[in-house]
Amino acid sequence: MTYRLYYWPGLQGRGEFVRLALEDAGAAYEDVARGEGAKAIMDMVGSAGGRAPFAPPFLVDGETLISQTANILAYLGPRLGLAPPDEAGRAVAAGLQLTLADLVAEVHDTHHPIASSLRYEDQREAAKARSGDFLARRAPKYLGYFEKVLTGAGGAFMTAGGHTYVDLSMFQVLEGLAYAFPRHIGTNEGRWPALAALRQRVARRPRIALYLASERRIPFNETGIFRHYPELDAD
Amino acid sequence: MTYRLYYWPGLQGRGEFVRLALEDAGAAYEDVARGEGAKAIMDMVGSAGGRAPFAPPFLVDGETLISQTANILAYLGPRLGLAPPDEAGRAVAAGLQLTLADLVAEVHDTHHPIASSLRYEDQREAAKARSGDFLARRAPKYLGYFEKVLTGAGGAFMTAGGHTYVDLSMFQVLEGLAYAFPRHIGTNEGRWPALAALRQRVARRPRIALYLASERRIPFNETGIFRHYPELDAD
Repeated sequence: MTYRLYYWPGLQGRGEFVRLALEDAGAAYEDVARGEGAKAIMDMVGSAGGRAPFAPPFLVDGETLISQTANILAYLGPRLGLAPPDEAGRAVAAGLQLTLADLVAEVHDTHHPIASSLRYEDQREAAKARSGDFLARRAPKYLGYFEKVLTGAGGAFMTAGGHTYVDLSMFQVLEGLAYAFPRHIGTNEGRWPALAALRQRVARRPRIALYLASERRIPFNETGIFRHYPELDAD
Repeated sequence: MTYRLYYWPGLQGRGEFVRLALEDAGAAYEDVARGEGAKAIMDMVGSAGGRAPFAPPFLVDGETLISQTANILAYLGPRLGLAPPDEAGRAVAAGLQLTLADLVAEVHDTHHPIASSLRYEDQREAAKARSGDFLARRAPKYLGYFEKVLTGAGGAFMTAGGHTYVDLSMFQVLEGLAYAFPRHIGTNEGRWPALAALRQRVARRPRIALYLASERRIPFNETGIFRHYPELDAD
């Protein structure tokens, strides 16, 4: 069965966490809106009935529709061989993924602290204030935590269950932060050596390396979550 | 086995979603930090090893530690008889819970749009701007969605699987919004009649009614997520 992934075409966004899992596993999937356009998403979101998703990404697997990034990964993980084998380990993985999701939401709000409905340029001053706090307090708190988790699990993988979707998502967050805040990450990445090694290791996984070099990998850009606005970056 | 819930004493916060599930099921649980103080949380968060949580709430069940509200509820749901019986239904419930979590995060940021580390009074102007957008666009979008989900599932419960933890969390969100934004909810609640009925129905569930009248229910206050600042409210 081919998985059908629905996410906005033209940006990595939250859909990228799902793409990385599907690509790493070599799963058959269709990136629906990149073929059919964003209308395919709106048709699903606007459909009647209790099972319509609130927002992309969502995944269709036969008769099953799964929404919310972390939920999709919890569903796909065991099917793709990308989850810990036991329930307790899966709960750990899901908790880490949700903590990554919290970090991603905070990254989004560095450039949109007031309203998603406003342009960045119309909330730039608030964005500078929020980004300053993010880089001074929040990013180090999160990255210090994930560094501790990684070293506590042995240093190779984010969970004791071996390579999982959490490693792929951690890679994506590190790539995104380095894109959005190159000065900050350049100055500080030495504080998180295990994470830096994980980032390189994931990038070298054969299917990930092929994916990153392909046209299927949408480049980071200023319509996604991780945006490079130099005025928001700082040592 | 008695569940051990860790959450900040003195506020409902995200811990309240877990408390409501435990209370509705009549489960044996200890609200650890209300007895032992916040230090019990800090000791766990600061502990070494890959299984330390990033932040409360987290739940300890024997040897298992589960973090993140939606993850805790996905774990407890089947054990407490508060989850749909099948995997597809559980994935729907988890997706709805995560969408409620997104709404809760946006509510938090109505009063703290710039930094959690700053006082409300030091970001009030940005809070007014963010709250204006929240009430004009975001809250109606979320509540309209949940109204559609509820009516699509038959009108009685948020999922086709009957009464679940999602109904309890939906109740809590509606209570919180009515506390924080009484003018807005008073003016607009007629737009979401099925949600208003669900809110009343959950409040009348015997164990929930007893809980709400007990000292275990911490009142809403201005240290939680749902805060009543009249200047942020609007029709």
